[in-house]
Amino acid sequence: MSNNLLKGKKGIIFGALDSNSIAWKVAEKCYEQGAEFILTNAPVAMRMGEINKLAEKTNAEVVPADATSMEDLGKLFDKAIEKFGKIDFVLHSIGMSVNVRKGMHYTDINYDWLQKGWDVSAVSFHKVMKTAWEKDAMNEWGSILALSYIAAQRVFPDYNDMADNKSYLESIARSFGYHFGEAKKVRVNTISQSPTPTTAGQGVKGFGGFINFAEDLSPLGNATADECADYCVMMFSDFTKKVTMQNLYHDGGFSNTGVSQKVIEKYL
Amino acid sequence: MSNNLLKGKKGIIFGALDSNSIAWKVAEKCYEQGAEFILTNAPVAMRMGEINKLAEKTNAEVVPADATSMEDLGKLFDKAIEKFGKIDFVLHSIGMSVNVRKGMHYTDINYDWLQKGWDVSAVSFHKVMKTAWEKDAMNEWGSILALSYIAAQRVFPDYNDMADNKSYLESIARSFGYHFGEAKKVRVNTISQSPTPTTAGQGVKGFGGFINFAEDLSPLGNATADECADYCVMMFSDFTKKVTMQNLYHDGGFSNTGVSQKVIEKYL
Amino acid sequence: MSNNLLKGKKGIIFGALDSNSIAWKVAEKCYEQGAEFILTNAPVAMRMGEINKLAEKTNAEVVPADATSMEDLGKLFDKAIEKFGKIDFVLHSIGMSVNVRKGMHYTDINYDWLQKGWDVSAVSFHKVMKTAWEKDAMNEWGSILALSYIAAQRVFPDYNDMADNKSYLESIARSFGYHFGEAKKVRVNTISQSPTPTTAGQGVKGFGGFINFAEDLSPLGNATADECADYCVMMFSDFTKKVTMQNLYHDGGFSNTGVSQKVIEKYL
Amino acid sequence: MSNNLLKGKKGIIFGALDSNSIAWKVAEKCYEQGAEFILTNAPVAMRMGEINKLAEKTNAEVVPADATSMEDLGKLFDKAIEKFGKIDFVLHSIGMSVNVRKGMHYTDINYDWLQKGWDVSAVSFHKVMKTAWEKDAMNEWGSILALSYIAAQRVFPDYNDMADNKSYLESIARSFGYHFGEAKKVRVNTISQSPTPTTAGQGVKGFGGFINFAEDLSPLGNATADECADYCVMMFSDFTKKVTMQNLYHDGGFSNTGVSQKVIEKYL
Repeated sequence: MSNNLLKGKKGIIFGALDSNSIAWKVAEKCYEQGAEFILTNAPVAMRMGEINKLAEKTNAEVVPADATSMEDLGKLFDKAIEKFGKIDFVLHSIGMSVNVRKGMHYTDINYDWLQKGWDVSAVSFHKVMKTAWEKDAMNEWGSILALSYIAAQRVFPDYNDMADNKSYLESIARSFGYHFGEAKKVRVNTISQSPTPTTAGQGVKGFGGFINFAEDLSPLGNATADECADYCVMMFSDFTKKVTMQNLYHDGGFSNTGVSQKVIEKYL
Repeated sequence: MSNNLLKGKKGIIFGALDSNSIAWKVAEKCYEQGAEFILTNAPVAMRMGEINKLAEKTNAEVVPADATSMEDLGKLFDKAIEKFGKIDFVLHSIGMSVNVRKGMHYTDINYDWLQKGWDVSAVSFHKVMKTAWEKDAMNEWGSILALSYIAAQRVFPDYNDMADNKSYLESIARSFGYHFGEAKKVRVNTISQSPTPTTAGQGVKGFGGFINFAEDLSPLGNATADECADYCVMMFSDFTKKVTMQNLYHDGGFSNTGVSQKVIEKYL
Repeated sequence: MSNNLLKGKKGIIFGALDSNSIAWKVAEKCYEQGAEFILTNAPVAMRMGEINKLAEKTNAEVVPADATSMEDLGKLFDKAIEKFGKIDFVLHSIGMSVNVRKGMHYTDINYDWLQKGWDVSAVSFHKVMKTAWEKDAMNEWGSILALSYIAAQRVFPDYNDMADNKSYLESIARSFGYHFGEAKKVRVNTISQSPTPTTAGQGVKGFGGFINFAEDLSPLGNATADECADYCVMMFSDFTKKVTMQNLYHDGGFSNTGVSQKVIEKYL
Repeated sequence: MSNNLLKGKKGIIFGALDSNSIAWKVAEKCYEQGAEFILTNAPVAMRMGEINKLAEKTNAEVVPADATSMEDLGKLFDKAIEKFGKIDFVLHSIGMSVNVRKGMHYTDINYDWLQKGWDVSAVSFHKVMKTAWEKDAMNEWGSILALSYIAAQRVFPDYNDMADNKSYLESIARSFGYHFGEAKKVRVNTISQSPTPTTAGQGVKGFGGFINFAEDLSPLGNATADECADYCVMMFSDFTKKVTMQNLYHDGGFSNTGVSQKVIEKYL
């Protein structure tokens, strides 16, 4: 059922790999709420053609773009402007660490891979915003979101160098958010989401144990991808116009729970 | 224009003094979004009869209650249950410091007044939730909100003992939010709002200078009461079901801006 | 072995109940580092006469004072001024919740006991500083410390209303710290200490399970009372003159560890 | 006058450019407190030979090393191990942004320069620790420190991409701190220092206005380089053994002051 929260709003959604992706759910919910958008992902992530199903379902266009390439991003935003005029929202749901994939220990990470992951997971967010800024592509009171994780604040050993990338990503949200706010009345935030069994998430070593721990520590349980998509919709809507430069925990209360009854029972 | 975000939802709104009040705006927006609710305030705050205009406009009932009195709160919730069955949302917008009103310096505050302000501004939030808890008055996935201010984290000298009250209030939100989440799937949050020229706010010494400073430091400018009401609606809606035990800054970016160009210009 | 870190410094130490108390260790370490001080505690806490052993060992005078009584505090500071002239440091290590003692559930706390605990555990810190302020008892670059716990930021269910008291206590540290800094060049901080098996700590329900969980989550293990005393000495010394209005985690890394290998192993 | 706080301790100090440098002061104070250490800096930063004066004064050896080069770092640590056996402390005081130097606007930064600054200012800290880890160069209860700035948490527009670098740096401190704590009982922290008129600091555009604003907002005034060195000594000493993975504000209270009387007066 639609509340028409995004009626007339246009956007770009990065990172819908498959139907487990948070970005996938965001696209579905944005469509349901009346938005039009372009779906984009790295060409390599589109090989399976999954995204075309989503595009069909949400009446969206697919424009491949490597989010680390200013050239690709330029073309993507040109396309968006051509199609929509200025846009109202952007979702950045991109993250990747070769060190995680290869199972490197944090104390032994490879620095070329570190740089690659930093570029893909964090700098890409700056590049997206720089492109939007240079092309003056955002409407006033537009909303830009990236997905983050609490490892930016606290250590989860298996999350490895992605923790540092998320810290950098959140800093970019604040830094660029300041300028986008001052000059264009555009807000920039990150949502710090519960561990989510996306295709990417499940690639993290020890994910199973970890998601169970998070479930036990969160008074409302872990937030699902669907619920995250609802929250993204709200952050794109006009109901949150003065929220900016924030990292918003969407985690069932995990972040502010020191210990829960369920966890402590393992220690009695 | 309504998005029917709160269609079918029932609630209680504390603290609508006059049309400058944030709670007043929240009531208007909740009504617009399809909610039904009871309006309540301390009997003494209703002497002018202003609240009746709001009640008429929003088709609400007015039930006077001193939020520091468990007896009054009991009657209020009994009334709500009688009228609605279980309820879905509560807004706590209550704050008062005699030390602020009397212009006492923080280093010279009166401890009887300190206790009074603590009870009214902070403990009342516990009492409201304890009453709801004991009467099992909240529906699953209900949402309880209180309004706070960043003085809970950083010093604003003229805010005086209200700073300590807001810290305590936010702690209650976390503490009770844990239990309400675990046991009842109810979320509890605080919104940390920009300084707002309500009747109460304007009573703080030096408010004029302060609100201008906040305006200059906030990339999007101060958030208005109207915008705060939008954010409250969002927090009452089903789009934020897994957000709990959080203090949410609604402040145009103030909280994460160290210095702005406008402020630094006063130092060049 | 002494580093003479506090040579010539004078102070007041609140809260040395017995040899398990953090304040007891602080007194021993301060003495070792060359300080002179008055030991104080509530008259009721001195019934066993334990504190006299400490006084003898540290060449200190014992002055009983109820830290919620401005009259007692006035006499205590008069005594200190008579003995030392102005003083350089104060330790506030006081906390008590009747609701915790009686095993009340947080959702069912008694409000008279709530107020008592708030007054003893938090407001007493304001009263101590107000007394010092009024009597102009602090030397420039003096240091005032209170002991806190991370329950002020995150929920530990069994910690009950002490969590809210610690939030209030930390807020007082900031609020009064601002004024003491501006006017007198005195710093005010709180140390957020690992759970510690003091006589008071052990009275918290489920303490055994909890301290083990904290041990497992902290990369360096829980900080001991002895180590906390070292940190207090450091905060009283001239090596930390510009640290103020901070809450300093002394916890072996607990506060910034989301999950440790040891904890996650319980979930594999 | 020495307190012999670092008697028998050995270390490596990165980043003493000239007598305005914080690292320079740290070296002087460490020497005064009984430590022996190696001084190191990038070869290019040593062209003026200033560091030799410091080495002479502190009886230290100078070993040039580019902190972004694992090869250089390997040789540096080999030298340290040869000279001292295992070491007890490391200071990382390194930061540089080409984008800042060139006056690029944050929205228009050059990505090659971004990477260079990230590598020098942040990744170098990981490289230093990885080298120490691989060579098992740290004694138990050793202490590793890096210098940071509050721009990691809040926006100071002219600080540009250094803000994001400092966020990443602080995240490395937590991430590596977890592993160094668990495995080697070594602590890792960052000190978030007041703006300081070092040669590097003064290169930031608008530094003059900014340091005055910080002075006015900080109840104790800005912390000096000398005072920062005192704090570093304490963090290297045995008085802080259980403090790890923390970002410690050393800023005269700036971080927790929302507005001061002096600042608000500009708005009255």
